[in-house]
Amino acid sequence: MKTSEKTAVTTLGEFRLVNRLAKTVELKQPSTIKGIGDDAAVIRYEKAATVVSAELFLEGVHFDLTYTPLKHLGYKLVTAGISDIYAMNATPRQILLSIGLSKRFFVEDLDELYAGVKIACEHYGLELAGGDTTTSLTGLTLHITAIGEAPEEKIVYRSGGKPTDLLCLTGDLGAAYMGLQLLEREKRVFEGNPHKQPHLEGYDYILQRHLKPEARKDVMEALAQHHILPTAMIDVSDGLASDALHLCRQSNSGVRIYLERLPISSETFRMADEIHIDAVTAALHGGDDYELLFTVPVTLHDLLRKELPHVDIIGHLCDASEGAYLLTPDSQAIELVAQGWRS
Amino acid sequence: MKTSEKTAVTTLGEFRLVNRLAKTVELKQPSTIKGIGDDAAVIRYEKAATVVSAELFLEGVHFDLTYTPLKHLGYKLVTAGISDIYAMNATPRQILLSIGLSKRFFVEDLDELYAGVKIACEHYGLELAGGDTTTSLTGLTLHITAIGEAPEEKIVYRSGGKPTDLLCLTGDLGAAYMGLQLLEREKRVFEGNPHKQPHLEGYDYILQRHLKPEARKDVMEALAQHHILPTAMIDVSDGLASDALHLCRQSNSGVRIYLERLPISSETFRMADEIHIDAVTAALHGGDDYELLFTVPVTLHDLLRKELPHVDIIGHLCDASEGAYLLTPDSQAIELVAQGWRS
Repeated sequence: MKTSEKTAVTTLGEFRLVNRLAKTVELKQPSTIKGIGDDAAVIRYEKAATVVSAELFLEGVHFDLTYTPLKHLGYKLVTAGISDIYAMNATPRQILLSIGLSKRFFVEDLDELYAGVKIACEHYGLELAGGDTTTSLTGLTLHITAIGEAPEEKIVYRSGGKPTDLLCLTGDLGAAYMGLQLLEREKRVFEGNPHKQPHLEGYDYILQRHLKPEARKDVMEALAQHHILPTAMIDVSDGLASDALHLCRQSNSGVRIYLERLPISSETFRMADEIHIDAVTAALHGGDDYELLFTVPVTLHDLLRKELPHVDIIGHLCDASEGAYLLTPDSQAIELVAQGWRS
Repeated sequence: MKTSEKTAVTTLGEFRLVNRLAKTVELKQPSTIKGIGDDAAVIRYEKAATVVSAELFLEGVHFDLTYTPLKHLGYKLVTAGISDIYAMNATPRQILLSIGLSKRFFVEDLDELYAGVKIACEHYGLELAGGDTTTSLTGLTLHITAIGEAPEEKIVYRSGGKPTDLLCLTGDLGAAYMGLQLLEREKRVFEGNPHKQPHLEGYDYILQRHLKPEARKDVMEALAQHHILPTAMIDVSDGLASDALHLCRQSNSGVRIYLERLPISSETFRMADEIHIDAVTAALHGGDDYELLFTVPVTLHDLLRKELPHVDIIGHLCDASEGAYLLTPDSQAIELVAQGWRS
């Protein structure tokens, strides 16, 4: 759609924006007593604790609108929010979405963003129950509050890991980071020559991992189905190294991770080769993976291997005094270090 | 403190920032099962519904750091967040605080901001239970998620008002807006001549109303003490006109507000005179008041007058077909209109 045909956000008041939004949302969660349209959302979970997480998404830091479709961005924001809820072994039910909009956004842009949010809500069974809408003098500002429930005894903290526990990981690592590198490369090419078309073919997986990542609802359900309760869990969003260290510190443990067991996709390797980046470094520090890292007692090894073959056992916890190390196939031990503060 | 003596935020990782923050917070709410330091906060209210609200605060839109002390800003952010919880007749218990920090912020600045948040938490009996910290390429970005509890049958929505119900208001209106005008004026003077000192004496009240507003915990407690349950309620943060219209629409009612009953402080009148603004306009559209607007059955008139003399009865609801009007002392009827989208 041409800019000239779009509708300025200022032509709608906040009230009408909220109304427009509320119309696209159907009350689906029986736990939502009141959704959009009052001073606050009202929620009631029967016999369960409430789990709440917050995630801030800022233009230029977390996303680049040059190559990020708004619909994908809406979807990814929801993924980022509820990934933290799954990491507590809880079920997300509601989200609150806050948006700071600058003048360059049109109502149609907002509709695109909400369309992505709505698809994610349907996919994960969530209800958009409230939020805040405001003007922004700078970039697009997004915040999601994710709310979920879990029986108190089923909640998994970062702190419950014990030495000898197996360290398990869902999915693979570094792909989102490589998708980002690809998009950044093509952006630079485009800036150099606007007539050139971007070369994105053959990289569907890493692009999807960056632009439209999923939260691991499937794995949480599979674990529950087989009555496996992790001892500790964290979502991998800052890179494996950083998040494994969080889990270790809070579980008062050390860790050994086997380099050859790190799950890395072939597209990630191929892209890493192309741009001369080490794929393992991307796996350790890339971030934005939204996978789950968890520990289980070593006695569950065979059950895990049999019933959840798509979960990788990448190492094990050990005594805190033994430190946190990555072991290479030739038996070198590389100390795990979190990289600087990215986001 | 001189900038050269301050500590860059980048010298701390997010992990240490969170730790620094967690140290200043004591777990006080028995309903907080897990606060800062995991993927999400875990909360459990016994026999009560959970009420959650979200508020985005952006530099340049909601605050100007030229004249807003960070400690005050932290306090005000909490007020803005929990005011929505009180407006549901619920008790706020926890907050999640998300912060996007640009490079010009130092650790000491963050400490100032948190100091204000902490004072507010102590004053209102809240727990800082989590949030998100990230870099920002633009201005300071703040978001508060406020969480509270209420027995389901005590929750007051915007929609419960009935024709003939009395329209009641806590505090006074327009003062925060006038405080803002004063600060903006002195900023312009300072920009014209940096050696000039700002003239802020004698305007303590309007300055406090803008810089460090309070949420109406006191009134909610007084209403409960006298067993008065409002039929509908909203917090006045966008200006009386806009918020009264929200309440009317959702209660499917019209409204009559008596101009001479609008509570306006003498400082507000004085400042309005000085800068040639109509004080009533400021009261109707100024915003940022964080007062509560609520309705009660007309049968409670005498009880309300006797027990809550500091609550003003400013009008009454009527049939929706009669519209929403402000009545002047000389019996003119001015239609209530919400001003454009400010924030």
